[in-house]
Amino acid sequence: MSSAIEPPFHEIAIVGLGLIGGSIALAVRERWPASRVIAVDRQPVLAHAISTGAIDSMCESVAAIPSADLIVLAAPVRQNIDLLGEIGRSLKTPAVVTDVGGTKQSIVNAAQGLPETLTFVGGHPLGGAERGGFGFARPDLFVGRPWIFTPDGPRARDAVDRLSRFVTRLGARPATVTAEEHDHLMAVLSHLPQLTVTALMGVVGASVQGDRLTLAGQGLVDTTRLASSPASVWRDICTTNPDAIGDALDRLIARLQEMRAALQQGDTIDRFFDEAARARAELMKGRE
Amino acid sequence: MSSAIEPPFHEIAIVGLGLIGGSIALAVRERWPASRVIAVDRQPVLAHAISTGAIDSMCESVAAIPSADLIVLAAPVRQNIDLLGEIGRSLKTPAVVTDVGGTKQSIVNAAQGLPETLTFVGGHPLGGAERGGFGFARPDLFVGRPWIFTPDGPRARDAVDRLSRFVTRLGARPATVTAEEHDHLMAVLSHLPQLTVTALMGVVGASVQGDRLTLAGQGLVDTTRLASSPASVWRDICTTNPDAIGDALDRLIARLQEMRAALQQGDTIDRFFDEAARARAELMKGRE
Repeated sequence: MSSAIEPPFHEIAIVGLGLIGGSIALAVRERWPASRVIAVDRQPVLAHAISTGAIDSMCESVAAIPSADLIVLAAPVRQNIDLLGEIGRSLKTPAVVTDVGGTKQSIVNAAQGLPETLTFVGGHPLGGAERGGFGFARPDLFVGRPWIFTPDGPRARDAVDRLSRFVTRLGARPATVTAEEHDHLMAVLSHLPQLTVTALMGVVGASVQGDRLTLAGQGLVDTTRLASSPASVWRDICTTNPDAIGDALDRLIARLQEMRAALQQGDTIDRFFDEAARARAELMKGRE
Repeated sequence: MSSAIEPPFHEIAIVGLGLIGGSIALAVRERWPASRVIAVDRQPVLAHAISTGAIDSMCESVAAIPSADLIVLAAPVRQNIDLLGEIGRSLKTPAVVTDVGGTKQSIVNAAQGLPETLTFVGGHPLGGAERGGFGFARPDLFVGRPWIFTPDGPRARDAVDRLSRFVTRLGARPATVTAEEHDHLMAVLSHLPQLTVTALMGVVGASVQGDRLTLAGQGLVDTTRLASSPASVWRDICTTNPDAIGDALDRLIARLQEMRAALQQGDTIDRFFDEAARARAELMKGRE
């Protein structure tokens, strides 16, 4: 990695040192050792991050950020929206502001109230891991994964370019869509799978307990990896994208009811399997 | 591996050289090189299996099996039931007969018509892999995985002992439950997860196509691993366990409808996530 390449940002404030925020801090450390990382969170995570060298300095509120050319909001979605308002009131120097939340329309709308010195570009790194928290953060979390940006209008063009260079160097694949398309796509590609696994795991847990669970095969284990996702993250995603998620849930419920009816009537379930196998093959194109 | 241990079976006929049957053949080859493996299937898979040394000899129908002390039925469930009848009519020497199908009540019932020389014990090795077929078979497929037996009455005790020794040496963890309990447990632990993933992948495929699918994260990829399962296997499982699968589907649909209603009313979805996280933690106990 050549240090001759100018870093896209020199002073990066990360608000929320969870899995994503912590992984960004660690990745910046690796790629641009000369860039400064300021973190905003609570104790004891800040002390832990300082002691491991993941960050250079810390503050306990965004109002205390002295300056930064990039601010990354990495708290749950609704908290990010509140933080955006606070930053708009407190930060007097120009900065690019982005977030890493799973829904985009609500925060993009909220960003319209920011002062001219701040350029907001909604962001969403995909992937994550089975478990959240700074303890699971790692610098390679974003390697090979999409990182979606949802710029609102042409004023953000330069900021999108810098952010795209930034996440490309973290190993991610930047992509740009509108906030509206993002929320519709993610309702199907991310929010529905999460809620489906949550519901499935709940049914399994309510139906089978104790040592009988040891009779489950690898299929159930793999399928329900997302079942330990934190409610704190998903509460906000559901609240800020209810219509698109509701539509996606309706489509799934309808399909399950069709399968249920076919089973009851002794009809073949082949077409459901054929459609699923085709969709899976399309999903896996270029991934294997 | 000591060859001083007496093999539980010396002449093993495997009917159906797919992923499971083929993996049994390869594992027997490794553990007991002196045991003979006869396979019943069609061309070209038999020629392929002979040429790779996975089997010693082959026949194209079960009526042509000269003798065997173990017969493993490894075709889809309803085909296994038909094959069981044929074996009952043709095989004149004593043998233990087992199967590897995903449902057990229908084949255990069918086995009641077998002659006294044949001892049937229903079997079900759990796990499998993303893709079926002899080409994906491997001798370590069963390592660490449950292998359930569903003996019908005390007459099978000796056969269960020998089969348990057999699968333990293949690396599996043998367990014994009744055929009825098996089918109820598997409706929840195996059949429901499969149908859920099939439905989810179908909805995703119908909603998002082309390069937009590249915006899916690892969560969807992991969750839908089972979506390429072959309809040929699942058709029979659904047909032979419709009531328990129907009940499980009803419970999932009800839970999804509750989540849908909570979303619409702006209620919290926390309890669904908390229940799922607890169930997932219980599922993972002793697995990590």
